[in-house]
Parts: sequence; C-alpha cells; structure tokens
Amino acid sequence: MSQDDSTIYLNGSYLPRSQGSLSIDDRGFIFGDGVYEVFRAVDGELFQGRAHVTRLLRGLDALGIQIPGEVEDPGLLAIARSLLARNRHDTGQATIYLQVTRGAAPRTHHFPTPSVPPTILLYTSTFRHPEGLHEKGARCVLHSDRRWSRADIKSVNLLPNVLAKEAARKAGATEALFVRDGMLLEGSSTNLFGVLDGVLRTYPPANYILRGITRDVVLDLAAGHGIPTREEGIPMEELPRVSELFITGTTTDVLPVIQVDETSIGKGRPGPVTRRLQRALQEEMLRTGTPTG
Amino acid sequence: MSQDDSTIYLNGSYLPRSQGSLSIDDRGFIFGDGVYEVFRAVDGELFQGRAHVTRLLRGLDALGIQIPGEVEDPGLLAIARSLLARNRHDTGQATIYLQVTRGAAPRTHHFPTPSVPPTILLYTSTFRHPEGLHEKGARCVLHSDRRWSRADIKSVNLLPNVLAKEAARKAGATEALFVRDGMLLEGSSTNLFGVLDGVLRTYPPANYILRGITRDVVLDLAAGHGIPTREEGIPMEELPRVSELFITGTTTDVLPVIQVDETSIGKGRPGPVTRRLQRALQEEMLRTGTPTG
Repeated sequence: MSQDDSTIYLNGSYLPRSQGSLSIDDRGFIFGDGVYEVFRAVDGELFQGRAHVTRLLRGLDALGIQIPGEVEDPGLLAIARSLLARNRHDTGQATIYLQVTRGAAPRTHHFPTPSVPPTILLYTSTFRHPEGLHEKGARCVLHSDRRWSRADIKSVNLLPNVLAKEAARKAGATEALFVRDGMLLEGSSTNLFGVLDGVLRTYPPANYILRGITRDVVLDLAAGHGIPTREEGIPMEELPRVSELFITGTTTDVLPVIQVDETSIGKGRPGPVTRRLQRALQEEMLRTGTPTG
Repeated sequence: MSQDDSTIYLNGSYLPRSQGSLSIDDRGFIFGDGVYEVFRAVDGELFQGRAHVTRLLRGLDALGIQIPGEVEDPGLLAIARSLLARNRHDTGQATIYLQVTRGAAPRTHHFPTPSVPPTILLYTSTFRHPEGLHEKGARCVLHSDRRWSRADIKSVNLLPNVLAKEAARKAGATEALFVRDGMLLEGSSTNLFGVLDGVLRTYPPANYILRGITRDVVLDLAAGHGIPTREEGIPMEELPRVSELFITGTTTDVLPVIQVDETSIGKGRPGPVTRRLQRALQEEMLRTGTPTG
C-alpha cells in the first residue's frame, strides 16, 4: 500500500492520508510545541512499544501537555496496532510516526487559555534499511552541538538536528555527531557507542542527549553478552584510539561507523563487538512477533 | 471582522481562514523547520516592513530555504498590504503574521530531495495593547536560557521561549528574562534595555539574542534624543543598581519593567528615559501612515 492512500489517525479519527490536514494555528507548526516518537514494527507488533509510550508520556509531562485519558497508554499502542492492521503491515517491517502537540489556538507564547485539545497524529510507513550500509559501515562528520540544553525531551524543536543531518549529507556522510565541550554526545537522530580500551562506552543519560530506546536495549544486550559497558562519553580527541564505533536508533538499529571526518575508526571496517550487537539486536527484534505490549 | 472569517494567504492563494490547512508532512510541524515575522501595521501601512523582510530573507538564507522569486521582497510586502486591505485593516492597528517553512515532504531530517516548494503563510489580526500595562509598568521573572545557540535566527523552534513565557505567566508576570552565564540577554519574545550609570544598555547583536527591529529603532531614537547608549549586556547581579528597565518588541513597543523577581527597579515606577522613548516610538509609528515600504 503506498503511503498516499494509507490510513492515518488524527485527533480521534481514522482517515485517508489525503484527508489529513492541520490547522494553521497548530502550536506544532507555530512553536514546535510538541513531542514525537518513532516506533518500529515487525509483523504487525511494536518493538519496545511500552518504552516508547513511557518516554512520550514523560515528555508530555515535562511540557505540561495533557492528552485525553482514552488515548493514553495503552490507547496509543492500540491505535498504532490498529493502523498497522489497516495498512496491511501485519507482515514485514514498518514504522509508526506519532506526534502530539499542544493543539491549535490563537498565537500566544504562553499556553492557551482556556486550554485546547492536543493534536494527536499517527501514521505508518513501510520500513527498509538502506542497502548494504549495515554491512559496509557508515561515515560520519563532527558537528558543534548548538541545540538547547533539554535534548532529553524528544520535542519537535529539531532545527539544529536538521541542519546537522544536512551538513552530513552534503559531506557524503550518513550522520553528524554532536560535540559539546570536546565530548562526543550522540548523532543528530541516533545515539553513539564506542569501544575504548575494551570497554563499550556511551554518553550518560542527561539533559544533553536523547536517551534512545535502542540505546538502552543495546546496553542490556551488551551486558548480557559479557561486554564491559560504561555510561561515559568519549572525548573527541580520543577518536583515533577508539577501536570500534557505532550509532543506534529505532530505524538505525546498530550501524557501524568506520570513519569520522578524516579519522579512520579501528581497522576501517566494522569490528567484532559491533557485529555481535548487530546480530543480538536483530534476534531481539525478531522475537517481537509475540505480542507483549 | 473577526479572525475566523478573515482572508489569509497560503501558498499562492488568498482564501478564507476556515479553508486554510496544512499538510501533516509540513516540516514546520515535524521539525520546526522554518522562520517567521510579526509585522505591525498602522492604518493599513507596515511599520518597518522592509527591515522585517530583510531579516526574514537573512533567516531563510541561513536555513537554506528558497522562496519563489515572485513572492520575495517586495512581493511579501505586497501580499501583507493586500491582506490588510482585504481584512479592512486600512484604519487602526493590526499585526501580520508571516511564516515560511521548508515545505511538506516525506519525513527525513536532511533537506528533502528533490526539494519541495516552501510553505508560505500570512494572516492578519486586529491589534490592541493590554490595558494600562504601558502606563503602570510590568513585572518580569528571571529564567535560565536553555535555548540553542542560534537565537539570532527567528525560527519557529520556540519551545524554550514558550516554556519561559508560561513560567512568567504562572508567576503573574508579563515576561521572562533569559539569563546566560550571569548576563541578562533578552525576554522570551522581547529585547531588554536598562539604564545603568546614566547609560542605556542592551545586549549586543550576537548569536545569543534575536536582534529586534524595534530594538534597533529604539537605539536610533535614543541616539537622536541625546541619550547615551551602549550595546553591552547587564550582569544579573547589577539589577539592584539599574535605574530603569524596559522591554521592546513589535507588539510590545516600549514596555516599562518595574520589578524583576523580588527586585524593585529604580523607584518602582517607569522612569524618564523609558517615558521619552515610549513617546518617541509612538510618534515614529504614527508617521507610518505615509507609505515608504
């Protein structure tokens, strides 16, 4: 089914994509006043669905956006599953995009008074990895982190991420890695892992990174495979000593990084820890078929 | 004419507000990937119209968003004037809201390939100052500046501004003043001026503030009135020594600030420099009637 005649969910209704439209007063459009999630689905079932919803609800809480009780957890998961079924994603891989904004109201910076219903949008897309990239490995560029200091909220204020990703694309690279105060933080839409002195390291969950669901799964898988891990960032200047590097994300999985700017990583090809975690994540994801929420 | 049956401009068409709608794929909604301006109009003519368009074009250039030649300057001003006439704002005061986003395209962080037409929205509203506030003076609160480091781009990534303004409103105040590294920068939707040791000071144009059109007009007016000015920020700790404080903006004009958190400013009422500049700006604005662009 092409994206254009698929069914979407918008503010309580299931409707054809072509009929979905937003108010010019939507605070998502005017202020970026909302949060989002991207879910991965395998054979009609959501991977880590509950973790995504938990993060979404945390973000809504941080922004003071209230959603009607009936579309709260588990309602959002039910809507997502219904869309997958309606759009014939019961087999194969798909993604669900979910965005909630503070709603449409005459423009004021402060929250609308009286409050208005939030805008709730979900749609599905067929998912495919870019061909060959996960075998060969990706190139990244370094990018100065200009984001606001609440990158831990998965908001749609994503302009710095957009500009960073575009800079990467222009340089022929896959991802831009944010650097702040000399530390490697994460990618513009991914988390970053590196192996240094035999320890798998990734930046600690703090206000400077978006704590990825896949990041947390990979940390668990690593521990389960006896790989030493530490939630500690890697200084940019240590890059030449890093033996392996990879990025993670809901649509990225575990993607080996073999070059950053002009620095070749390790042996210039995906390393053994990366390969083990790639396989482990894939296996974990294929287990998703069993509906566990 | 109420806002609801007014005419708006959206992507090349003039249409009733109720018929204006946005794609769920608009990058303004998904990423906050766009810029905006708010114009002030007096008797159907734009105040500082050209300065606003120049800033808009600079922002579009910074983001790599291209608009069709025919809607560039002076086309945007012509559209704004046409809307004012259509909505019977030829007498009295009004505002024009203008937003340009990178357009609607399947979601990718990087710019769409191939590129898509930008979304261009303009609408008008009747303008009125909140009653009495400009006579009495306003209260402000201090707010830690969590914004990204390109506040000089007037983008719709405004979530930190929204949260700051809401914090002010909850505290019963009019505006939140951003503080970074101990320096007072500007308000969440205004610029900040203070009189310290007889000199009118405001933060220099840099990446940490949005250089307001009204800010620049006020600096010129102050110079014209022989008031010593300096583009230098005021340290937060100097607040008790500041004799006058005011905020400026397209819909704020010159608004006296008489209290910040628990600190009373000067004599606790609007001071003489503020009053002179309030009057000077009002006179300047009333001269707008003559169309100069």
